[in-house]
Amino acid sequence: MGTNFFRRETRDIEFLLFEHLGIDKLLSYEAYRDFSEDDFRMIINEALKVAREVLGPAMQDGDQEGCIYEDGKVKVPGAFHECWRVLAENGWMAVSQSPEFGGQGLPEVVGGFLSELFMGANLAMMIYPGLAVGNGRLIENFGTEDDKTLFVEKMYTGVLGGTMCLTEPDAGSDVGWLRTKAVPDPEAGDPRIYKIEGTKQFISAGEHDFTENIIHLVLARIEGAPQGTRGISLFIVPKIWVNPDGSLGEPNDVYCSGIEHKMGVAGSVTCTLNFGENGKCRGILLGEANTGMAKMFQMMNEARMITGVMGQAMAANAYDTARQYAKERVQGPLFTDRGAGRVPIIQHEDVRRMLMNLKAGTEAMRAMIGKVFYLLDVAEQDTDDAIRKEAQQQADMFTPLVKAYCSDYGYDLTREAIQILGGVGYCREFPVEQYARDCKIASIWEGTTYIQALDLVGRKLGIEGGKVFQDWIQGVMAFTKKHQDDSDFGPDFKLLFQAAQATGDIVSRYMKYFKEGKPRLVALTATRFLECFAEVLMGQLILEQGLLAREKIKQVDGSSSDGIFYRGKVETAKYFCRNILPNVFARYTALQQEDTSAVDIPEEAF
Amino acid sequence: MGTNFFRRETRDIEFLLFEHLGIDKLLSYEAYRDFSEDDFRMIINEALKVAREVLGPAMQDGDQEGCIYEDGKVKVPGAFHECWRVLAENGWMAVSQSPEFGGQGLPEVVGGFLSELFMGANLAMMIYPGLAVGNGRLIENFGTEDDKTLFVEKMYTGVLGGTMCLTEPDAGSDVGWLRTKAVPDPEAGDPRIYKIEGTKQFISAGEHDFTENIIHLVLARIEGAPQGTRGISLFIVPKIWVNPDGSLGEPNDVYCSGIEHKMGVAGSVTCTLNFGENGKCRGILLGEANTGMAKMFQMMNEARMITGVMGQAMAANAYDTARQYAKERVQGPLFTDRGAGRVPIIQHEDVRRMLMNLKAGTEAMRAMIGKVFYLLDVAEQDTDDAIRKEAQQQADMFTPLVKAYCSDYGYDLTREAIQILGGVGYCREFPVEQYARDCKIASIWEGTTYIQALDLVGRKLGIEGGKVFQDWIQGVMAFTKKHQDDSDFGPDFKLLFQAAQATGDIVSRYMKYFKEGKPRLVALTATRFLECFAEVLMGQLILEQGLLAREKIKQVDGSSSDGIFYRGKVETAKYFCRNILPNVFARYTALQQEDTSAVDIPEEAF
Repeated sequence: MGTNFFRRETRDIEFLLFEHLGIDKLLSYEAYRDFSEDDFRMIINEALKVAREVLGPAMQDGDQEGCIYEDGKVKVPGAFHECWRVLAENGWMAVSQSPEFGGQGLPEVVGGFLSELFMGANLAMMIYPGLAVGNGRLIENFGTEDDKTLFVEKMYTGVLGGTMCLTEPDAGSDVGWLRTKAVPDPEAGDPRIYKIEGTKQFISAGEHDFTENIIHLVLARIEGAPQGTRGISLFIVPKIWVNPDGSLGEPNDVYCSGIEHKMGVAGSVTCTLNFGENGKCRGILLGEANTGMAKMFQMMNEARMITGVMGQAMAANAYDTARQYAKERVQGPLFTDRGAGRVPIIQHEDVRRMLMNLKAGTEAMRAMIGKVFYLLDVAEQDTDDAIRKEAQQQADMFTPLVKAYCSDYGYDLTREAIQILGGVGYCREFPVEQYARDCKIASIWEGTTYIQALDLVGRKLGIEGGKVFQDWIQGVMAFTKKHQDDSDFGPDFKLLFQAAQATGDIVSRYMKYFKEGKPRLVALTATRFLECFAEVLMGQLILEQGLLAREKIKQVDGSSSDGIFYRGKVETAKYFCRNILPNVFARYTALQQEDTSAVDIPEEAF
Repeated sequence: MGTNFFRRETRDIEFLLFEHLGIDKLLSYEAYRDFSEDDFRMIINEALKVAREVLGPAMQDGDQEGCIYEDGKVKVPGAFHECWRVLAENGWMAVSQSPEFGGQGLPEVVGGFLSELFMGANLAMMIYPGLAVGNGRLIENFGTEDDKTLFVEKMYTGVLGGTMCLTEPDAGSDVGWLRTKAVPDPEAGDPRIYKIEGTKQFISAGEHDFTENIIHLVLARIEGAPQGTRGISLFIVPKIWVNPDGSLGEPNDVYCSGIEHKMGVAGSVTCTLNFGENGKCRGILLGEANTGMAKMFQMMNEARMITGVMGQAMAANAYDTARQYAKERVQGPLFTDRGAGRVPIIQHEDVRRMLMNLKAGTEAMRAMIGKVFYLLDVAEQDTDDAIRKEAQQQADMFTPLVKAYCSDYGYDLTREAIQILGGVGYCREFPVEQYARDCKIASIWEGTTYIQALDLVGRKLGIEGGKVFQDWIQGVMAFTKKHQDDSDFGPDFKLLFQAAQATGDIVSRYMKYFKEGKPRLVALTATRFLECFAEVLMGQLILEQGLLAREKIKQVDGSSSDGIFYRGKVETAKYFCRNILPNVFARYTALQQEDTSAVDIPEEAF
């Protein structure tokens, strides 16, 4: 049993859930009617225990032991088996999935916070059940009754593993180029059964020894189907064939030919899988032919949210480690009081600044993530069509922000923690450097940052002819105008106003660029626009929190733990607006230059 | 023999040296009179060969094999021994040191570029000779004739290792707190010999099997000396005692009790050293008692420059890998031309943007580093006292920029390369993730970023009552005014003008804050000021290069390799000013808020 380094406190999660976002509304929905606020509190605390006592202690083992490949088989880190057992036996794998198939039926927003706790405690471990459950949900949504009966509950409860097989050596971001092919198998006597042949790369959880069988969901092109993404179908490809009665049949000609050695998440295996090398791999068509991309995208959107949580969770881990270390480590007199003695480094102004980056960054990202999951609950559960639609559209628009911003900024923030810990932060003893390494994958998988940015500017901005964006940004502007003379947050609302104005102006410019045939100016700046958008959204949320906390202070003793929490929130809101939000202006200035040097430069000059 | 991943081209180094900085002036100095431009070109090319053929192929071995500790002894990665041999036998260790002691006597600026090549090829390896030579130089400067005879040449030529022993478990950034003590050893019959006792931590090259003996330079407090940094002395402490005739005596009671497991530079050993556990460790006082810090600082300033080079070199490696990969990897149609086919990813706008960040960032940092090394040559060699003094003062002022900015920004840039390579960038196959891990130490050792920032605002800005800074910033302003209507670079000079103005204003604000008793506003923003200062300096240099390149284009065929290089330079200058320099405005906006939330927040709220 290793050391547990996970020490998240849940006060900010509870603040978001019960004070900021408003859980009451969710509790009024049919699907959540049997839950109470107390239930959620209890569940979060139980999850925290599992995170600290089961997942956390296995985190460093996962990094140091890694996965072992031999002859097509993979051994996961030894300590991970106990994690899998506890998660499976206690129903922690499918917390937001249908109770009908063994899920817990929790709201998405609660599930999102549980993901922060579990992935924060042991990211590499959580990738395995995450994929099993995420793919199970696809079968739940698109499978036949038989498919559901055979697979879903077992994928939700740890009996079956699962994977998502998109990437090929020659088709990464460019999924439409994939070469894996499917041909009808007349011998099977079932028109849904195809022979599958191809090689998939970078397949997380592609082979392991948690479960006897693994259900691969494979993107492939049926012979004769159109080129590109429109000709892609989705297949259920079990590692071992599953008979109609649920018993296991023959091995299904799926072979793991190697695993990757990665910068981080070493305990999470990344496989190359060969399907049908011997012509004996069978897959079951999931839903209609040639609709695979659309289906996969449903899962992808969930996976993108969870990937954003990864970045946020790693930053929150880094923050937790850094704040504890900074309180304990004594070093040097202050620059501003050289005559005085040595102090805990948390008193040094620059350490404080870095801690505030970590605190404000972590909490602002958590607020953004919570907001979007909350919108997803509304979109799924509200009885009013218009409300459901509006919530879904906002969630769709915000999802690329969560995925891209949190994965990139989460990684950046781990840097601050390494720096606060100094030499110790560069060593394995405290795992802040592991958080950095584990985090780095988040900006790459499930669609790179650029893919998110193009999704945002190419699709999401255009929802309802741009109305969804315009309504939102007008809402932010109205919010800032209402509070522009606030005695505490006046300057913050002014900064948010300017940042929203700049972000709105970028969108106007983009429309102009498209019209004028200058789409390169959009492509060259799209990732920076995405960051501006995310920071304005987070600025809005963090100021909502600041206003709320200021009210709450009046109701409690200022030196109580609640009082200190609320006072911290007020300062955090100011810090975010005055120190992080101004990054919008740098990007906006750059954008205003309409600079094309990056594409004007001769390719040979690189 | 491993794979070589080092593929630096030297065109930009040669541009800096022979076209931008002006090597003629250096060649007129007595010390460099025997060199010619051709000599330097030849030396750089020979160094490149060593980097590619000897150092580079051992880089990944160093990372994967690491150092092995057993019973107080350390084995370095096997492949490193050949590196040491080649460097030693061919005089590559002490390239800028006195020929009198076996050095090559090259200008500092040439030595700086060789460091980029060697450290770029194998950073972990180069730390060993770097410390031997750096410490040898301290003995050359402050030792007696006997000390010099015994140690210096052997430390310059690979016969002896060397270390700098400052840090202790309880004294990191806070060196003045160190506890290692020295007491006169009456039995030694030499008043310069003391008994040393204490524990040093994080000692690079503290134990290894390259050389039979290692010369430790140890900071310790002579019993009864004042507390703090004023009571610290410097001692030569050989691992094995060296007799007056140069022969080896008894082991000197120095014991390596363990090594660290680090995020990167795994081939570079990091030791805990126990001195005098058995009361038998002897050290030779170097120079006067209680002057250790000042002496160590001389070496520290050199080490800080070299640490800046590390950051720049890792970014340049990342750039080299990314640009080659981006030219070869084919993926997806362009966002701006969806109907067209797949293209090499270098044509994708966002990849191009990231490559430009890498190119412009790398070249701007290289220019800054080259400029400061050049100033150091002028400061050492010019015959005019006033010129020497001015150059030294500028170099002193710029050194913390090089150390802090290049170490932090170098790390940030490695992120871009990981992103460009995607999944492959996250794996060990291409070592961009290793560059990130290796680079991260640079912002921590030799004084953290905050220590550099405090050195800058607390000491360097005040040189000559602020005149050195004011003269420099006025020079930048005059430069921008002269070219503000330039047909190509007009917008760039305007941006540089605004950035310089902002940076100058920060300094005025700082004077006001000090006067008004608000030094916390300085401490809270000092690292961001340092970044502004560095970016303005780099902006100045990159625009000098842009103007120069534009002139040179007229003299060559635009499609020749020189023509392409110069055209690339012009675009790079624009890119830097329009995309990187605007970060100054974000920091300046933040600074103008005079925000104290980071120190107002209750400590318990973290």
